[in-house]
Amino acid sequence: MHVAIPLYPRFTALDAVGPYTVMAFAPGYTVTFVAAEPGPVTDDRGTLTLTATASYDDLPRPDVVIVPGGVGTFDALADEALIGWLRQAHEHTRWTTSVCSGALILGAAGLLKGLTATTHWALLDSLKQYGAEPLSERVITQGKIVTAAGVSSGIDMGLTLLAQASDEVTAQTVQLAIEYDPQPPFDCGSPAKAPEGMTDRALHLIV
Amino acid sequence: MHVAIPLYPRFTALDAVGPYTVMAFAPGYTVTFVAAEPGPVTDDRGTLTLTATASYDDLPRPDVVIVPGGVGTFDALADEALIGWLRQAHEHTRWTTSVCSGALILGAAGLLKGLTATTHWALLDSLKQYGAEPLSERVITQGKIVTAAGVSSGIDMGLTLLAQASDEVTAQTVQLAIEYDPQPPFDCGSPAKAPEGMTDRALHLIV
Repeated sequence: MHVAIPLYPRFTALDAVGPYTVMAFAPGYTVTFVAAEPGPVTDDRGTLTLTATASYDDLPRPDVVIVPGGVGTFDALADEALIGWLRQAHEHTRWTTSVCSGALILGAAGLLKGLTATTHWALLDSLKQYGAEPLSERVITQGKIVTAAGVSSGIDMGLTLLAQASDEVTAQTVQLAIEYDPQPPFDCGSPAKAPEGMTDRALHLIV
Repeated sequence: MHVAIPLYPRFTALDAVGPYTVMAFAPGYTVTFVAAEPGPVTDDRGTLTLTATASYDDLPRPDVVIVPGGVGTFDALADEALIGWLRQAHEHTRWTTSVCSGALILGAAGLLKGLTATTHWALLDSLKQYGAEPLSERVITQGKIVTAAGVSSGIDMGLTLLAQASDEVTAQTVQLAIEYDPQPPFDCGSPAKAPEGMTDRALHLIV
């Protein structure tokens, strides 16, 4: 199973590396980071550079696509090379997925029309402009489209996807291999659980 | 606050990128990926390359060090440039930390003697050779040494560290920004929770 993760300037690193790690640990999966041209792509903090090893043209028919989000999403919405590749790749994928604001890129490619979908909590309403019904869930599967919430949700999405793409035992084995037994020190990872006023503070960290 | 994350061949990407993301989203923190020489470093799956932007010599006195694990750890234990840098940097750090098998590198630098420490579940016993007392916990703080369990635990470690290094509200705000409200599809992320026989299967995925 070949998984493609497109990188664009100012993506969020964990959006990509969370589900990458899940899929790359699974037996029989190959993950390739792609971009318009192979080469380095820097994240939205400006301090981490990942290497795309293939161009979109090199990998027209991946089995799975995982589109990360990030501050750069808003520029990426007008990136015709990315949107065109995604739209064409989707015709042949088994799964087309997104993490965080990556859902907006799926939307811009016309893939979310009439579907229920999710994204980062700060952006849920913006899914409506693509004809999607936003829902605050960790991971939403609609046919072969899978969307996930903000940043860290890509790990949960990757395991959910792996259970569907292979089987539950494979997903559970990867979960154990990467010791994904989360114990966050606080219970404030969603707006519903966070103290009042914290969403405004969090938004300042994102942009 | 300057955070250094050393990269060595065949590190595990999520070990580094989990805590990186937490720290890089926090106000006032700068994270630099370092290596013996600046340049690309490829992970233990062979498919993801991160760029080290500084050499060890460039960054002799970071405030925080986060040492990732990975299959390459066992070669890294004999990497005198890494071990020497870590030992000297530790004299001046506010925190010296590890994720997964990165704890063995702290051990090889002589930093775990007489301390309680943790690492990936498969490697707990190996901490004893460095004079440490292994304990199966998600994150263990012993003075300025913080060790974390396998791979994904680096996110929990990063938030714990941030709460200590700045304050709880800052850590909570980052947790909300990266929507870290984990909802794993299965409850099998540690050996105590996994079905019988799954640890052997998981070990086959790691090496």
